[in-house]
Parts: sequence; structure tokens; C-alpha cells
Amino acid sequence: MQKTMIQALSNHLGKEVVLKGWVHRLRVLSKITFVIVQDCTGTVQCVGATCLFKDIKLEDVIEIKGLVRAEDRSRAGFEVDILEFKILNEASHTLPFHSSSETPFLEAVGQDVLLQYRPLALRHERVGSIFRLQAALVESFRKYLRSQRFTEIFTSKIVSAGTEGGTHLFEIKYFDRAAYLAQSPQFFKEQGVLGLERVFETGHVYRAEPHATTRHLTEYYSLDLEFGFIDGPEDVMELERALLSSIFDELNSSFGTILKQFGQNPLPSMMKVPAWEFSECLERLKHKYQRNDLVDDLDPLAERQLCELAFQETGIASLFVVGFPLTGRPFYTHPRGQGRAQSFDLLFGGLEITTGGQRLHTRKQLEEALKARGMLPAAFEAHLNMFDLGMPPHGGLAIGAERLTAQILGLPNVRQATLYPRDRIHIEP
Amino acid sequence: MQKTMIQALSNHLGKEVVLKGWVHRLRVLSKITFVIVQDCTGTVQCVGATCLFKDIKLEDVIEIKGLVRAEDRSRAGFEVDILEFKILNEASHTLPFHSSSETPFLEAVGQDVLLQYRPLALRHERVGSIFRLQAALVESFRKYLRSQRFTEIFTSKIVSAGTEGGTHLFEIKYFDRAAYLAQSPQFFKEQGVLGLERVFETGHVYRAEPHATTRHLTEYYSLDLEFGFIDGPEDVMELERALLSSIFDELNSSFGTILKQFGQNPLPSMMKVPAWEFSECLERLKHKYQRNDLVDDLDPLAERQLCELAFQETGIASLFVVGFPLTGRPFYTHPRGQGRAQSFDLLFGGLEITTGGQRLHTRKQLEEALKARGMLPAAFEAHLNMFDLGMPPHGGLAIGAERLTAQILGLPNVRQATLYPRDRIHIEP
Repeated sequence: MQKTMIQALSNHLGKEVVLKGWVHRLRVLSKITFVIVQDCTGTVQCVGATCLFKDIKLEDVIEIKGLVRAEDRSRAGFEVDILEFKILNEASHTLPFHSSSETPFLEAVGQDVLLQYRPLALRHERVGSIFRLQAALVESFRKYLRSQRFTEIFTSKIVSAGTEGGTHLFEIKYFDRAAYLAQSPQFFKEQGVLGLERVFETGHVYRAEPHATTRHLTEYYSLDLEFGFIDGPEDVMELERALLSSIFDELNSSFGTILKQFGQNPLPSMMKVPAWEFSECLERLKHKYQRNDLVDDLDPLAERQLCELAFQETGIASLFVVGFPLTGRPFYTHPRGQGRAQSFDLLFGGLEITTGGQRLHTRKQLEEALKARGMLPAAFEAHLNMFDLGMPPHGGLAIGAERLTAQILGLPNVRQATLYPRDRIHIEP
Repeated sequence: MQKTMIQALSNHLGKEVVLKGWVHRLRVLSKITFVIVQDCTGTVQCVGATCLFKDIKLEDVIEIKGLVRAEDRSRAGFEVDILEFKILNEASHTLPFHSSSETPFLEAVGQDVLLQYRPLALRHERVGSIFRLQAALVESFRKYLRSQRFTEIFTSKIVSAGTEGGTHLFEIKYFDRAAYLAQSPQFFKEQGVLGLERVFETGHVYRAEPHATTRHLTEYYSLDLEFGFIDGPEDVMELERALLSSIFDELNSSFGTILKQFGQNPLPSMMKVPAWEFSECLERLKHKYQRNDLVDDLDPLAERQLCELAFQETGIASLFVVGFPLTGRPFYTHPRGQGRAQSFDLLFGGLEITTGGQRLHTRKQLEEALKARGMLPAAFEAHLNMFDLGMPPHGGLAIGAERLTAQILGLPNVRQATLYPRDRIHIEP
């Protein structure tokens, strides 16, 4: 007999079903035992004679043949009377937590244990919700872009050189030579614009940065897009406003309860998120927070302070910072005049979650930009050749999926939004 | 003025629009010039006085301000009268082909040139269609699985050891130690089953195999799924029948014309694809093709022959081969008795496009399987620990996205269905 999903039980009132899942909770009385069974669609209370069960314990994998019976006292409106019962596989007697542990207990367990017992943590609604929301977030990203005529591309993560000149690259032994893990699909997505005009990619990128912060990973899931025929970074920001608003709409409707459980308000429309010039940001920080220490970049504190200021003005703790100093940006960045870059960061809830901007689109500009940075155009010849194939003015952005997930749920460390985080120390589990 | 997409022009009859795109075709008469403009939504004929254009050539990036005029002689029902014209960026004078080259010419150019000029090739409908179809294929995969309660996961590609014991791994210099590129998300997706019951992942996997065949890549895009509470590999095959039928349905409706252009019939329903035992396959091959050389595996010729036999019997050139010799399969494979494995391949159009099966789900079985292969359980302790967390009987499969794309379109080499193919020789472009 086929397994019935728990969510579908209400269609089987008065009928026999087979349930398969995990023992989520257990209440053993002298004559009767209550087993709360969990599967990927929910939980249900099952009831049987205590003598039916021997050695049953939390997290065991079980199969139940039972009768779905209407039960007014149950919140679901029904229970399952157990007719037959068997253990398909046993869980350990010694687990540091259970899928039914209270949230404060789960959080007290600590991130290291949650990672070591990642699958068990995932079975807990608190942790499982993070990754179900992340999956929905990534899918909403793709869905909105498809609706705007973007094509999804799948590009290689094995490259012969870095996009930004060769620092912070992981080296691969590639047969008898060296190759590298891609830091971003930047060049590939620009090539995508040449051929398909509007492209996106969702995939891992790699940064050999030895940071040990709450916001950095050596491998993260990058939501990338790039499109042609823009007039400036404003077009990219405008797309991101609509994109995030669409994603947030979907999350509000599918994950409203989860957001509340994580202490979050419904996600805002992003259509009115302002764009502040970098120089303006420095002025505001100086004026409001007496920050005189910032010169050519923001620091994490400044990102939080700017979001606070934006919140006071707009009601949304988010802003675009546009016009960073050009020198700090990659060679392919389009200049904005006066030493500034046509690129932007999006700060959201106190953290940078996007970098984007307009790119250079002629070979001549690129060669000059490389030279100005003391880099050799010849080393980028294969890439430069692409700009002879009819490259439109273009730009794009990249969103870190883990960071965005963490910000949405108010998680203090990006690792909590990463199934298997990789950093300087960790390559396991 | 905002760019109007070519596909939307019919909504602007009699109005002024701005078009931005590429010069797809060009016909220069003494007084009048016809410019066929291409963007990501299609092409349109634009007409202007020849004196407006100087130095215009194929693939140039252009902007046109024009008037949409009804025109009975045009297939679209309208043309655009050019009022203003400018070149946004020039293409090279010397290109090996153009976006409007005839298909036989394009194919004669050869795969190496198409790769070297990948973006230009993508702008050609023939090549662009391959990757648009691939994007739709991958999305249909995800969509069907979401409808069956699967959750998408994003797992690390940086691992401390291989899933199958350490051969054919690419080594990464990971700060001061060695790490490896994941050969598959196998262990991670099994962990996903522990926590979420049904999971899928679409992402790159890596095989350091020095093959130089038309079917192998060192990096490919793997469509992976894994789910719990199965009774055997038959449940996985049944899921794949429904999954592929759903994908094929969507491709038939969105890419019917493209399939025809590639000389393909509409894609079949896969619901009736048979499953033949490996031993039965050998018998059939012996009987029909006098193949006495096969013992414990199939070869590419045998895969083609079996698909031919399946086609004769069912009208579909596809079959599952189930019950391969256990010795040739990874340690985590569930046995089927008599030295056979509970695993299967799906052959489609003469090529293996899927490997799948039921996995072992208890620590004891796994330890025995490792020992039987001369492998040390201690080396897999971190993985084995997962099986103490309540692991259901489970199984899954992986489909190579490039191979499936190639088979659907009848492409002779998997590289034609790979944006940036990686093999023993190539890490560029």
C-alpha cells in the first residue's frame, strides 16, 4: 500500500492508510501510546495500544497502518488509530536534540552541534524553515527574471584565471596544470549578454579569503544577473527594486507564519528604496554619527548606521549606495566621473547583500582600465576579444543567497543560512 | 525613451518606439536600406534612407528611433520606419560567421570556432535554441519535483574526500591543506532525505576522468534528486517516468518548432518505458546482435542496440536497465540479491542519461559493504554517523543536463549542449 502524505490525510477520513515518517513526539501511558508522526508535509497524532510498541523512541523511522478517525479535540480534526506498526530504521539513543526540541533549547545547543547533526537539525521546523524559505527565495529570483525575458545559463566554475586579476583564488590541480575556481560568473554572464541579451545564473562562487566573520564564506550561492542596453546603474537598481519586491511578495504569502516565528515583520516593498551617493553617505555618517574615519569604503558599522538612517527616512532599513571610489572596484567597472564608479551596493537590514553596476563595454575602455591598474591587457586577450562581437552597454548584479536569507530571517550569522558552510577552518561536514 | 522589446511592437502600431539590438541582416539599396534588428525577443525589419547609415555592418549594436507602420507584405504585419539611428558599439569587420548565417554554414564552421566565438554563436538562433531549451528543461525538472513536495537544496562542492573512495577527484589547494571538488552531491542529498525527506539539487559536479569522448566532460550540470520511504528502485524509476514525461510535455509545447528544426519528433511520454534486467539485456544482445563480449557492463554500442530493441517493442528508444552487477557500483548501493545491485541506468536515444537506485540505509549494511570492498569504515565515520539519525529506506537518481539536452535535440557531441565545456584539454573559454 502506498504511503499517504500527512497533509493529504483529511481526504481519507474513515479510511485505512499507510503512514511513513519519523517519531516526532511520544507520550506513553500505561494502556495507550500517542505517537506524533512527522513527514515532509507535516505531523499527525496517531494512537495505539501501548503493547504494540516496544523500544520505540524519538526520531525512529516508522511505518504505520492505521485508520483516519474524525476527532473534534484534535486541531487537525482527526487522528489515526494505529492498526499495525513497524520500525523501518532506528535512531540513536543519544542525540543532542530532537526534531521536537523547543526552539530556545535548540539555539542553546550551538551552531557547531547543529552543523554536526545537520540532517537532524533540518528535521526541526526551526532550521528546516530556513532552508525551505531559501529554496523559495532562489526560485522566486529565477521566476521573476524569466518573466522579464532573462535566460538561465550554466557556466563553468573551472577557469584559467580570475576575473579580477588573480587574488583570492583557489587553485585546482587540473591534470598536469593549474586551474582555478571561479570567483564569479562575471565574464561568462557578460558573454551571455552578447548572445542572449538578458541572462541569469544561480550557482556557487569561491573566494579564498581567510576571513572569519559572521558574513563571509569561502563558497557561497550567488544569484547573478546581467543584461544589455542599459543607460546606467540606475536601470540595474530599478530592476533590483522590482525583483526583490516580487521575491518578498512571494515570501510574505508563502512564509508569513515563518517570518513571524523568527520575529520578523512582513517584508517590505522595495520600490521606494533610495539610492544615495557614496559621498552623501559619508556626509550623513559624519553629521549623524560623528564618523570621521571613513575615506574610500564603508565598514560593517557604517552599513548598519546607513540602514538606520534610511529606516528613519523611508521606513525601510535599506538603501543603494552608488558612486563608490572607482579605484576600489574591478577593472571592468564603468566610471561615473570624478573618480567615482557606476556601481552600487545594496544594503539591507544593515548588511551589504548585493554588488552591481554598469560595466565597460568597449575594448578600448577596458584596455585603458587595465593599464591604469597596472594590469596587462594581453593577459585578458581572450576576454577582450569578446568585445569585438557586438557588446551592448550592459550591467548586472549579484546577490548572496545565504546573506539575503539571513537578513530576511534576522539570523546573526550567515552560516545559519548555509547548509554546509565553508570557511578558512571548515570543509566538513 | 525606454527600449521596446521587438515582440511587443505589435502593441505600438502607428507609434514611435525606441529599438535596441543587433544588426541581424542588412540590405543596402541605393536609396533605401533594410535593417533586420534582433533582440532577445525576436527580429523586425526596419527601413530607412540609405544616407542615414554609414559604416553599419552585421552584428553592430544599434539604437533606432522609429515609427511602427502596418505593412501587409511583412510576415509580422508591420515594419519600422527609421527616424533616428545610432551605433552603440561596433562589431568586428572580421567574424567567422554571423547570427544570420545559414545553419549548414554554421555547422561547417566547426565546434572549436563556435566555442571560441561562443557569444556570437549564442546570438544565432540555432545555437541559442539549444541553451534556451536547456534552461527550460532544468526549470521543468525543478518544477515537477516541487509539485511532488521536494525541497531544493544547495550543497557544498568543496569536500574533504570523495563519495566513492577517492579516485578521479580534482584536488584543491585549500589554504594550507587539500580539499576536493565534489563528484556528486550523493552524501549531501542522503542527508537531505534525513532532514527533509525529499530533496533535489541542480548544480555542477566534477570528474577528473581523462576521457576524450563525445559523451564525457570533467564538469557537468547534474540534476539530482533523492527521496525517502521507497520500497525499491522501481519507485525511483516510476518517479523518473513521470518526471521526464512532465518535462517532455513542457518542451513539446514551448519548443515544438525548435524540435522540428533539429529534425526531431515530438518527445514521447515516458510512462511506458520498460525496465529490463541486466541479465536479460545481455541475453537480448546475444540473441539479436551476436554480442558475446559483454560480461559485467554495457558499452556505448550495447546502449545503442538496446535502445533500438526497445524502440522495436515499444516505439520509444528508451529503457531502464536494472540489476547491474553489484561489484561495479558504489559501496552505498543496495543489493538486489544474486550479486546484483538495486540500481539502474536509464538509456535514452542510445545513451545513458541517468544513474539511480536504492541506497543502503543502515550503518551496519554500510560498514559491511565498505569492508567487502576493502575500504575502511573509519574513513567514512562522519558519513556513517548520519545513519544514526533516523534514515529511511531511500533512493534517487542523477541526470546529466548536457547529455539529456543533446539527446533531445539529436546532437552528436555533449559539448554542443554545454556552454563552456571542460575536458582533459579545455579550460577555456
